[in-house]
Amino acid sequence: MNWLLPEYIQDMLPEEAWRIEVMRRDVLELLRRSGYQLVAPPLLEYVESLLISESQDMDLRSFKLVDQLSGRTLAVRADITPQVARIDAHLLNRQGVTRLCYAGSVLHTQPAGLMRTREPLQIGAELYGHGGIESDLEVQRLMLQSLALVGIEGVHLDLGHVGVFRALVRNAGIDHELEAALFSAFQRKDVPALRGLVTGLPQDVQDALMILPQLYGGVEVIERARKTLPPYPEIKTALDELEQAAAHLKNLARDIGVDLAELRGYHYHSGMVFAAYHAGSHDAIALGGRYDDVGKAFGRARPATGFSMDLRQLHGLLSKQGQPKTIHAPYRQDAALDAVIAKLREQGEAVVVDLLGKSEYREELNCDRELLLRDGKWVVAPLKN
Amino acid sequence: MNWLLPEYIQDMLPEEAWRIEVMRRDVLELLRRSGYQLVAPPLLEYVESLLISESQDMDLRSFKLVDQLSGRTLAVRADITPQVARIDAHLLNRQGVTRLCYAGSVLHTQPAGLMRTREPLQIGAELYGHGGIESDLEVQRLMLQSLALVGIEGVHLDLGHVGVFRALVRNAGIDHELEAALFSAFQRKDVPALRGLVTGLPQDVQDALMILPQLYGGVEVIERARKTLPPYPEIKTALDELEQAAAHLKNLARDIGVDLAELRGYHYHSGMVFAAYHAGSHDAIALGGRYDDVGKAFGRARPATGFSMDLRQLHGLLSKQGQPKTIHAPYRQDAALDAVIAKLREQGEAVVVDLLGKSEYREELNCDRELLLRDGKWVVAPLKN
Repeated sequence: MNWLLPEYIQDMLPEEAWRIEVMRRDVLELLRRSGYQLVAPPLLEYVESLLISESQDMDLRSFKLVDQLSGRTLAVRADITPQVARIDAHLLNRQGVTRLCYAGSVLHTQPAGLMRTREPLQIGAELYGHGGIESDLEVQRLMLQSLALVGIEGVHLDLGHVGVFRALVRNAGIDHELEAALFSAFQRKDVPALRGLVTGLPQDVQDALMILPQLYGGVEVIERARKTLPPYPEIKTALDELEQAAAHLKNLARDIGVDLAELRGYHYHSGMVFAAYHAGSHDAIALGGRYDDVGKAFGRARPATGFSMDLRQLHGLLSKQGQPKTIHAPYRQDAALDAVIAKLREQGEAVVVDLLGKSEYREELNCDRELLLRDGKWVVAPLKN
Repeated sequence: MNWLLPEYIQDMLPEEAWRIEVMRRDVLELLRRSGYQLVAPPLLEYVESLLISESQDMDLRSFKLVDQLSGRTLAVRADITPQVARIDAHLLNRQGVTRLCYAGSVLHTQPAGLMRTREPLQIGAELYGHGGIESDLEVQRLMLQSLALVGIEGVHLDLGHVGVFRALVRNAGIDHELEAALFSAFQRKDVPALRGLVTGLPQDVQDALMILPQLYGGVEVIERARKTLPPYPEIKTALDELEQAAAHLKNLARDIGVDLAELRGYHYHSGMVFAAYHAGSHDAIALGGRYDDVGKAFGRARPATGFSMDLRQLHGLLSKQGQPKTIHAPYRQDAALDAVIAKLREQGEAVVVDLLGKSEYREELNCDRELLLRDGKWVVAPLKN
């Protein structure tokens, strides 16, 4: 039984593997042409380098190993984003805007959901050194373009902004402990708990925190928020950014929603956050946001925004497609045949040479045409069934 | 100091990462057109599935982990070949010839050499279900074509055949223990030890085993072997195969050597073995061979031959090359500019939009041209330094 794989660990067989390879190429090519340079950080790092945020979740999700060379603890990456931030902060150390992209496997000790693999194939892009809305819009647009490119249609885009909650916390002088409790209540969408926690805060902050869970829906939420939330400058900026993003992206998504109580990655994010959803998946299919302080752990905090997605998850949403068809060729010691095969391959065709010469196995080879000798010349003909 | 990486673990920065990405695409494309279907087995498997040969070396080289879902021991793959054999044997289970290819990272607890990484990027091809020389030749040719395709020149190809030593062992009725001791002496090229071990064996076997370490050099070794080794049919077959391979491949390598005492992967290989060498590397830069019984561990032994190589090792042998140049574009809210940028990107150009508008950072962006407004039209012009 040693062909059994661990739970939530799968092979990619030819159809899936090739299609994902093409998706990978297409997205990396889009990113390259958009000025993003490819980097490939390692699968393994010292645990302190990978777990730079205070997120306990990432710690629990990361496989740990002992390094035989140093005796220190290594972690297998569960996310590539912190690695790319390390490269920007420490290795490249450029002064201007740095655009980086990546594609690689990560491992999780536990699957993120019932339908998910423990080995996502993460692909994404990060933009460092620019704090304005222009870079948020660029990254959001690239995420939606990438989804369209790989064939995902009918995307719902959800926009949020951790700046709203942060502004309320800061302006009310809420301490770290209460902030954490409020955050946790928002994550659980636990309104009764929230009501208990806000008691004693200034009335306008109470009102704002209690109304936040209702500020989700279409883009009209932004107008509602302007009327109901306190007129702090940070909140105005956040709402302006959301409005610009919604206007800028409306042609790239089927619809756009706004959710001001969405605090995903709060420990990590610092500005606008966004996630793409699809009818075929309970979880987000691509996500990202602004996380300006991530480089601090590597000695250099600078503005940052980016997105990432899992190509294996996306592949699961696509309708099935056969593998590309191949051309069947007999095995002969014949220079003319070899030349024809070489030419077809140069043109991009897959030509399978049949070493066994048993026509009953042709079906396994996915052939729809064959090379035949006709009037002394090798020609491609449709395969007779 | 949390930007330090473990020893023998490296990032791939933009120049290397992109070049390796292109090498990967080119080799996978060659293999696809040659009829090889891509598969992508997982990074992690149960330890019993990955360590199917009796090789203690692979065991020591593999990182082990505990699976939180099953409590069982997992290993991170140190080699992809056994995984692909599992897919052929158990998942695809085709009756005809199956050609598979793969590209992915593997991890080693210790580097294979002082200049090597612990995270090779292994790429390769395997052919199952055909035991004849035709499949050996096909795989050897593909290995040499792949090396040429990625830009490696001046390759020395070394051919060997474990069938020669095996035939001597079998015909002399040598037991498992002595076989292991002889094998170990050959691996160490330890002739005095060998002399001690052969004492007591029939004289012709003694002579043959003692002459084996001298049977290396150019293709003339094959003729010398025909004259000096016992005329067992298995030895004749092995020498015929080597002769055919040397003739078939002579235009694809700078030179070809034969080494009959080379028993690399003896526990694993069953026929012709081959390795490519290059002046820039002490270790082989690509290798492979026939290993007909590998599928047995998965309940289905069938003929198999294949090759693999490490793209990171190959990249280290290439002369440095700059990154592809990009086109600098200003950031404007201008539909005409956006259209020109989109068109250039469609043509395959990388266009970097300068969000900061600071020309002193252009050098970091690797630009050699820029988009300028001239007589009301956006045009590409060489970048003035």
